[in-house]
Amino acid sequence: MRIILIGFGVVGQNIVKLLLSRSEDLYALYGMKPRIVAVVDSKGSVVSTSGLDLQMLLDAKKTKGTVGGYGDGARKDVVEIIESIDAEVVVEVTPTNLKIGEPGMTNITTAIKNGRNVITANKGPLALALPSLIELAEYNGVMLRFSGTVGGGTPILEFAKRCLKGDRIVSFRGILNGTTNYILTRMEEGLSFDDAMNDAKEKGYAEAEPSLDIDGYDAAAKLVIMANWVMGMKVTMKDVNFTGIRNVTADDMKNALKNHNGIKLIAGSNKGLTVQPTEIPKNDPLCVNGTLNAVTFSSEYSGQQTIIGRGAGGMETASAVLRDLIEIREAMGKV
Amino acid sequence: MRIILIGFGVVGQNIVKLLLSRSEDLYALYGMKPRIVAVVDSKGSVVSTSGLDLQMLLDAKKTKGTVGGYGDGARKDVVEIIESIDAEVVVEVTPTNLKIGEPGMTNITTAIKNGRNVITANKGPLALALPSLIELAEYNGVMLRFSGTVGGGTPILEFAKRCLKGDRIVSFRGILNGTTNYILTRMEEGLSFDDAMNDAKEKGYAEAEPSLDIDGYDAAAKLVIMANWVMGMKVTMKDVNFTGIRNVTADDMKNALKNHNGIKLIAGSNKGLTVQPTEIPKNDPLCVNGTLNAVTFSSEYSGQQTIIGRGAGGMETASAVLRDLIEIREAMGKV
Repeated sequence: MRIILIGFGVVGQNIVKLLLSRSEDLYALYGMKPRIVAVVDSKGSVVSTSGLDLQMLLDAKKTKGTVGGYGDGARKDVVEIIESIDAEVVVEVTPTNLKIGEPGMTNITTAIKNGRNVITANKGPLALALPSLIELAEYNGVMLRFSGTVGGGTPILEFAKRCLKGDRIVSFRGILNGTTNYILTRMEEGLSFDDAMNDAKEKGYAEAEPSLDIDGYDAAAKLVIMANWVMGMKVTMKDVNFTGIRNVTADDMKNALKNHNGIKLIAGSNKGLTVQPTEIPKNDPLCVNGTLNAVTFSSEYSGQQTIIGRGAGGMETASAVLRDLIEIREAMGKV
Repeated sequence: MRIILIGFGVVGQNIVKLLLSRSEDLYALYGMKPRIVAVVDSKGSVVSTSGLDLQMLLDAKKTKGTVGGYGDGARKDVVEIIESIDAEVVVEVTPTNLKIGEPGMTNITTAIKNGRNVITANKGPLALALPSLIELAEYNGVMLRFSGTVGGGTPILEFAKRCLKGDRIVSFRGILNGTTNYILTRMEEGLSFDDAMNDAKEKGYAEAEPSLDIDGYDAAAKLVIMANWVMGMKVTMKDVNFTGIRNVTADDMKNALKNHNGIKLIAGSNKGLTVQPTEIPKNDPLCVNGTLNAVTFSSEYSGQQTIIGRGAGGMETASAVLRDLIEIREAMGKV
């Protein structure tokens, strides 16, 4: 199974580490021999149709700051690589852009049009155009998988799709963004919004420019992905009514606590798609603290189920990409 | 797909209700036309190789107290029915007996030996002999499924088996019995053990003879099933070291609360198989209240995940049986 890996940041490197440490295992359990034939990062690229050495990829990135250091150093055009290098799967893990979706959008559509299966952990293209990407993949007879985009390593999308056969998910709601959940948890402990935010930045949970998280974009993007995948809705970012947590005050938090509630940034599919700060009873399984994510599914026959886990992390997200790879492998038969 | 249904209590009747209300749906989605060719309850039986009328089954049970009222009223021998009536699946939902496993054990082994796939919601035979039952099913080339035995409708077994491909579950622990969790929750609110127990009986959560729940047998049986299915261990009830909640006092509860902990009856796979009252931090996702069940899986790469839901209920358990039926249907191809 030949793989083109686009993006070699934390997630990309963890994918390679995982393939390196699990190679015997993956062959024994799934008959899978993944071979990475090209890697592209923002500064360079390297190609080998017979398969790149995984340890050398990691070393080049570490010592020279780019996979380009592995080969002749030149950075070839990504689109040209996707079009010209034979591969069964393109793994797209470039940074998320929720405004225009690039460079992920071009990478993904190019891969699909060239008959490559695609795995991505990049929310941007999906949030902006998932219905048409799914259609494009179906038209071209390839698989598009994105387990790592929601819940990090926590298999929220798989749970919804695979664990409730014969039942119907009627609605869901959840905490889909760990950064805001951490900030709200700290505010519950008495910190002001600004202090909680600074603490999140110090801990590395919030970006220097935290708007993506704080203003609800990230949660809205994940909600779009879930609505398409779990509920079969055909929606994009513009269909979500979202508000972030900037206007949650220490007083709001105190009042909620008086009523034995917490305030959580809840993304839900009931009555339209919304993301907004919401009071949740403290004893509701959904009311988790810290950086945890949680989603409650309401099903027609099997009742309510909640799944909780860390929503991020390089190795966790890489493990979700590996799950997708195994699914594609099983669908393809032996290659 | 022809089904022999053995046991027609709450779960059995809900299975029939579910098949009745979902028949079009099941055909459209899964190409499945389930046909119940025999039903046996404790007082009677009814057989029709061309398929029984589902509404008449429910009516006979309601008006005459037994499915025998549907036909000529005589109760044929169960083993004879399993051996002589052609069917692809035997659904075994007789009451659980954790001492000798009967009548479930005989029903299940007879079905397997006669080449029938088996679905059961009966913990007894599995807790006492799951490793040999799995072996017997493999030897006879049939499937043995039991999703409804753990978590009711909450797909705990499916989650572990299907959602974490390419990862390894290292250990798990959880609250597997809703009755004891309800009693412990009431004790946390200030009730004595006896008062909490009586309240549970009034609410219908505890049996008149509640030892199965209170003394940990039920949780231990579910732990055995999980250990075999999730961890590939070959264990039975005798391998579990279990203690119930009879000796948890109001003082224990107060002390735990002082440390921001709750006391929960925790079944776990770490350091041997154990079921015992355990202090759990209040902010741990596992620390759920009321009749809820919860299990936390620790995986090698994707971190910790917790799944929470009601652990019982007739319709919920029936929905788990239906999931198993769909899985068998998909494995069989069209019949």
